Amino acid sequence: MQLPYPYPLSEIKKLIPVKIITGKSDNITGINEIHKVVEGDLSFVDHPKYYDKCLTSAASVVLINSETVDNPQGKTLLISDDPFRDYNVLVRHFRPFIPIQHNISPTAKIGENTIIQTGVVIGEKVQIGNNCIIHPNVSIYNHTQIGDNVIIHANTVIGADAFYFKRRPEGYDKMLSCGRVIIEDDVEIGALCTIDKGVSGDTIIGQGTKLDNQVHIGHGCVIGKNCLFAAQVGVAGKAHIKDNVILWGQVGVSKSLTIGENAVVLAQSGVPKSLEGNRTYFGSPVGDARSKMKEIAALKQLPDLLKRSRK
Amino acid sequence: MQLPYPYPLSEIKKLIPVKIITGKSDNITGINEIHKVVEGDLSFVDHPKYYDKCLTSAASVVLINSETVDNPQGKTLLISDDPFRDYNVLVRHFRPFIPIQHNISPTAKIGENTIIQTGVVIGEKVQIGNNCIIHPNVSIYNHTQIGDNVIIHANTVIGADAFYFKRRPEGYDKMLSCGRVIIEDDVEIGALCTIDKGVSGDTIIGQGTKLDNQVHIGHGCVIGKNCLFAAQVGVAGKAHIKDNVILWGQVGVSKSLTIGENAVVLAQSGVPKSLEGNRTYFGSPVGDARSKMKEIAALKQLPDLLKRSRK
Amino acid sequence: MQLPYPYPLSEIKKLIPVKIITGKSDNITGINEIHKVVEGDLSFVDHPKYYDKCLTSAASVVLINSETVDNPQGKTLLISDDPFRDYNVLVRHFRPFIPIQHNISPTAKIGENTIIQTGVVIGEKVQIGNNCIIHPNVSIYNHTQIGDNVIIHANTVIGADAFYFKRRPEGYDKMLSCGRVIIEDDVEIGALCTIDKGVSGDTIIGQGTKLDNQVHIGHGCVIGKNCLFAAQVGVAGKAHIKDNVILWGQVGVSKSLTIGENAVVLAQSGVPKSLEGNRTYFGSPVGDARSKMKEIAALKQLPDLLKRSRK
Repeated sequence: MQLPYPYPLSEIKKLIPVKIITGKSDNITGINEIHKVVEGDLSFVDHPKYYDKCLTSAASVVLINSETVDNPQGKTLLISDDPFRDYNVLVRHFRPFIPIQHNISPTAKIGENTIIQTGVVIGEKVQIGNNCIIHPNVSIYNHTQIGDNVIIHANTVIGADAFYFKRRPEGYDKMLSCGRVIIEDDVEIGALCTIDKGVSGDTIIGQGTKLDNQVHIGHGCVIGKNCLFAAQVGVAGKAHIKDNVILWGQVGVSKSLTIGENAVVLAQSGVPKSLEGNRTYFGSPVGDARSKMKEIAALKQLPDLLKRSRK
Repeated sequence: MQLPYPYPLSEIKKLIPVKIITGKSDNITGINEIHKVVEGDLSFVDHPKYYDKCLTSAASVVLINSETVDNPQGKTLLISDDPFRDYNVLVRHFRPFIPIQHNISPTAKIGENTIIQTGVVIGEKVQIGNNCIIHPNVSIYNHTQIGDNVIIHANTVIGADAFYFKRRPEGYDKMLSCGRVIIEDDVEIGALCTIDKGVSGDTIIGQGTKLDNQVHIGHGCVIGKNCLFAAQVGVAGKAHIKDNVILWGQVGVSKSLTIGENAVVLAQSGVPKSLEGNRTYFGSPVGDARSKMKEIAALKQLPDLLKRSRK
Repeated sequence: MQLPYPYPLSEIKKLIPVKIITGKSDNITGINEIHKVVEGDLSFVDHPKYYDKCLTSAASVVLINSETVDNPQGKTLLISDDPFRDYNVLVRHFRPFIPIQHNISPTAKIGENTIIQTGVVIGEKVQIGNNCIIHPNVSIYNHTQIGDNVIIHANTVIGADAFYFKRRPEGYDKMLSCGRVIIEDDVEIGALCTIDKGVSGDTIIGQGTKLDNQVHIGHGCVIGKNCLFAAQVGVAGKAHIKDNVILWGQVGVSKSLTIGENAVVLAQSGVPKSLEGNRTYFGSPVGDARSKMKEIAALKQLPDLLKRSRK
């Protein structure tokens, strides 16, 4: 998330018990986890495996649990015994949870000719454009941004928290989300869909994209323009799906991968890693659809082949 | 959809910019897309590939983008440069979107001993029979018809729009839905299910059928009597599933196919084309369950077979 | 379910038309179906195949459709021509359906610092602990128990009826549910999840467990502590999933099985029978993940092997 103004590290130090190793910046303009970090941001790292990635990222300030690290870019370091915990303190400070007191928050902005049906709940600082229809019992969490000509069907949930936990000896510790959901113009979202907010960046549904019912889009996904996702598709966190991609029913997409433009993934397929565009895929895990069909045809002959091979 | 009375084509001409080629009828009694068309209907076709199908269908009046077609039954033709667009204009005229102003529309009819729990939203002209229970936060769109002794669990959505789009160079163009959902007597529908309305005909859930939670039924499906669908089953548009069919958990069924009576489809299977009744199926794509089990057993021996074949 | 006090069989006889064969008990302290029965309970059996199981169970009183059975423990028998029907009569008597009249029932107990967002519906005798957040439009059925520090995201449904039907010649007959859902401390449940109540016992979500969006947990499941279930996982009735189990996205788990501690089941897998703990699984049906990966790699070579074998 971006902060409304540059925030001095002297103020940060009052929020979390860190030692400051001065470096390239003495303020921050945003906080972000490592996948979404931009210049001016504070980010955090708590495992030596990722020190290097974080210290060569775009972050200006790094919250870290080691003082003796290779810091080629001279980033400002905030030394903490528990960067994950302290990062969560900052998220809670800059984006506190605000309960929803009304069906439609008085801080929400709703455009012209937009119809909000009965039972819809709209959180703090939500923005909805013109000519939208939000069907009954939809729940929209704080800070969601929705463009023009958007239709959202009944009981869909926009902006629930990222499913992101750190395993501690005593159980799972939740990473608090401060990202948003951004839904561009001309999007239609079916009934009973879930689109989670980003952990620190934004989940984006591109212009003209259409989602059928019961689709799940995880935290921080970026979905391109004019995509078509059939019912019960699930996309895990931070996947990047480019323009004009078609996912048929019950397809599952793993996290942090890319699907290229114009790719088509046939029903019930599972996508464990990135896919090139302009091709058709099938299977769990997916492969080229035509190859998979050949494998399926071949498999039918396997019991006989085994019988013959035994003779 | 059926119109309340025969509607003269001279009036249709005021709604959409068409040239009328007179033929067997000078009025229409309904509008329907090609899969659901009955005598008296206006239907539309915009691709030469389907001209023949439409011109030999039961339609009395055809909205079409060519004047020079083979018209053996002498149907009345309405010549349009964009039949899809003009059909949508008619849908919007005959079934305008009416926002839901109350939790329960004053035009809804609700039977005796029917319990409507808190947070339920019931649209225009919905009919619900006797002795039903509609659990909290269910959303029922306009024109839905529900029989007697029906139970619908919480947060389910009945009658959302069909997921049906035409690809245009500039993006997807939505086909407006004017069909309904009809739920017959003694049906039970789980929590968080979606049953979409038909594009122009009806989606029907047959008497005595039971759906578990998170089941999706696409637009225009006809589900028989005493079917049992386990949790997270998804059925695409216009599938016809006959009586006493059992679909186990997470089964996916493709569009516009038929599953015969008493068929059983085991969990997580995918049904890409029609299935005969009275058999048990498994796999994605499905086959006879016993054959599939043999293939799975054979596949376990394949790595060894390959090793041996290399020697 | 447990009754608040020992209930004399002379009173039971006024509710259902049974003949009493006196035995070890002349009252009952609970009613339970056979999988959940404990001492003092009345249970029922209506098929000779299960007579023995029921008559050697912990039940003190057995509702049964045969007088001439081997009854080694001298249980009290209630002879009925239709034990299923009569059991349902008792469930309806002891746990009558009470409609929800308010958003939050006056009989619900809600702890300190717990936030109930707009549109949430909370049924009769629900208990919610301290420091919980219940997000908008969640529906919580009667008798649910929720611990401390629990987060439930929007439009989730807790405590809907078990999907449990008896096939009769005239259609499906519903087994009424009198169990509860119990959610322990520190659990987080995503948006649009369904957790069904037990048929007669409790569905339990163990302390510290986290469910992503659109997860379905069937009736009477017992989920351990610190489990992690990704989006769109479905677990059928009475599954027992032990501590620290991880189920990735769209996994399906069949009914009445056990998954051992620390097991990991990869995305889209289907679990048809019990799994040992401390291992990683994949496939539908699942096997050891590494073996399955070898099978998938081998299958890619099968079309070529078949070609060669034909020569």
